[in-house]
Amino acid sequence: MSEAKSGTPEAVPTPPKPPMREALIGAAFRLFVERGYEQTTIDDIVSLAGVGRRSFFRYFPSKEDVVFPDHEKCLADMTELLKASADSDDPVARVCDAARLVLRMYAENPTFSVQRYRLTRQVPGLRAYELSVVWRYERTLADYLRSRFADRRDGTLRADVIAAAVVAAHNHALRSWLRSGGEGDAGAEVDRALELVQEAWSPRPGAGNGQSAQDTEDVVIVITKRSTPMWRVVREVESSLGSN
Amino acid sequence: MSEAKSGTPEAVPTPPKPPMREALIGAAFRLFVERGYEQTTIDDIVSLAGVGRRSFFRYFPSKEDVVFPDHEKCLADMTELLKASADSDDPVARVCDAARLVLRMYAENPTFSVQRYRLTRQVPGLRAYELSVVWRYERTLADYLRSRFADRRDGTLRADVIAAAVVAAHNHALRSWLRSGGEGDAGAEVDRALELVQEAWSPRPGAGNGQSAQDTEDVVIVITKRSTPMWRVVREVESSLGSN
Repeated sequence: MSEAKSGTPEAVPTPPKPPMREALIGAAFRLFVERGYEQTTIDDIVSLAGVGRRSFFRYFPSKEDVVFPDHEKCLADMTELLKASADSDDPVARVCDAARLVLRMYAENPTFSVQRYRLTRQVPGLRAYELSVVWRYERTLADYLRSRFADRRDGTLRADVIAAAVVAAHNHALRSWLRSGGEGDAGAEVDRALELVQEAWSPRPGAGNGQSAQDTEDVVIVITKRSTPMWRVVREVESSLGSN
Repeated sequence: MSEAKSGTPEAVPTPPKPPMREALIGAAFRLFVERGYEQTTIDDIVSLAGVGRRSFFRYFPSKEDVVFPDHEKCLADMTELLKASADSDDPVARVCDAARLVLRMYAENPTFSVQRYRLTRQVPGLRAYELSVVWRYERTLADYLRSRFADRRDGTLRADVIAAAVVAAHNHALRSWLRSGGEGDAGAEVDRALELVQEAWSPRPGAGNGQSAQDTEDVVIVITKRSTPMWRVVREVESSLGSN
């Protein structure tokens, strides 16, 4: 799990949820699974939960929102985490940490998450809703990266591309975990996926960008054949530069 | 424009469009701009176009579809182009070419594209529709890359991440062109954006991966200070390896 990974931020403590909200979510999912999403009305949900119709709309703007009850909070947590970043933080590592908040939300309740995943595959309206939520996460990450890359000529482009890559890597791992029925270590899968993005876009620690490397001024000599693949040369240079 | 770029595939010749379809699109957009999208009914559109209601549904499943009339054809062209790829083609370059088909579709009619962009910004339902279309392009590119990366352990992950990066880069350039009112060279902007993705994910020509580099076996020596930023070292190594 990502919680166990060093350097991963602690979850913001969640205030106890109002029982009525939980009751509505529970009732809605029971009906969605039993009768199907389209066949369930808001009246059915409030009747099973034993509350009034107005109570439903106090918590959820629409029937779609009861399917994804925690994304608003997760988006707020993500914004908070990114706002709390230091200028010395690697921006790509930071958006990867931010993406892990989404995984953590899903992993908190695997049964619910898997159930919802299956529901979302079946209902086109829910897939559309999910795409719009994913887009909001991507914009949140991109906005942070745009501010961090403000001094680069290609800053906004780079920000948008990296945000999309992080979201795609995260969702690849998340969906593979959901498809498996919530078995296995979702956090480790997400870490592995995000590593691919960091390899492509982050400066490597100790590879000449860090503080420690700037303290030493000795010379590195790399000798290689012209036919050596570029990745092998880079690895060689990196291990030389990073070994201080 | 991307058409002028060497190596970019030629557009599949478009058959002449039926005038009734064009008349419906024209009428719809005139009304969307004059009255607003939500305020325009399908009855208003068919009445202005001087055709029957059934004719509308012969061409467009819904009111949203008349706003994006050419995406289905573009998706089909994209699938075709990717299917026609050779195994020797660089897969990342190939999906970049495929993405350029979308740009070309927008650039064919700048006035219409800019008008639609402004409309889409204003109508949440159209933004959702657009997200679902973008998702279909991304899946088309990812499916191709998955087949090309089938022998890699991280093939599906890599495919999804690169597809997302290509789409994000393409859309970044496309939207900046649309925001500017369709001024300037959209093709050049898209090329520049896609180059960022290719730099991160494609093997570089002449950088030890190409045929020509394998013919020569001389030695390259790079001498650098430990404090030199990694990107500068890589650039130095690249220019040495690539200068044959």
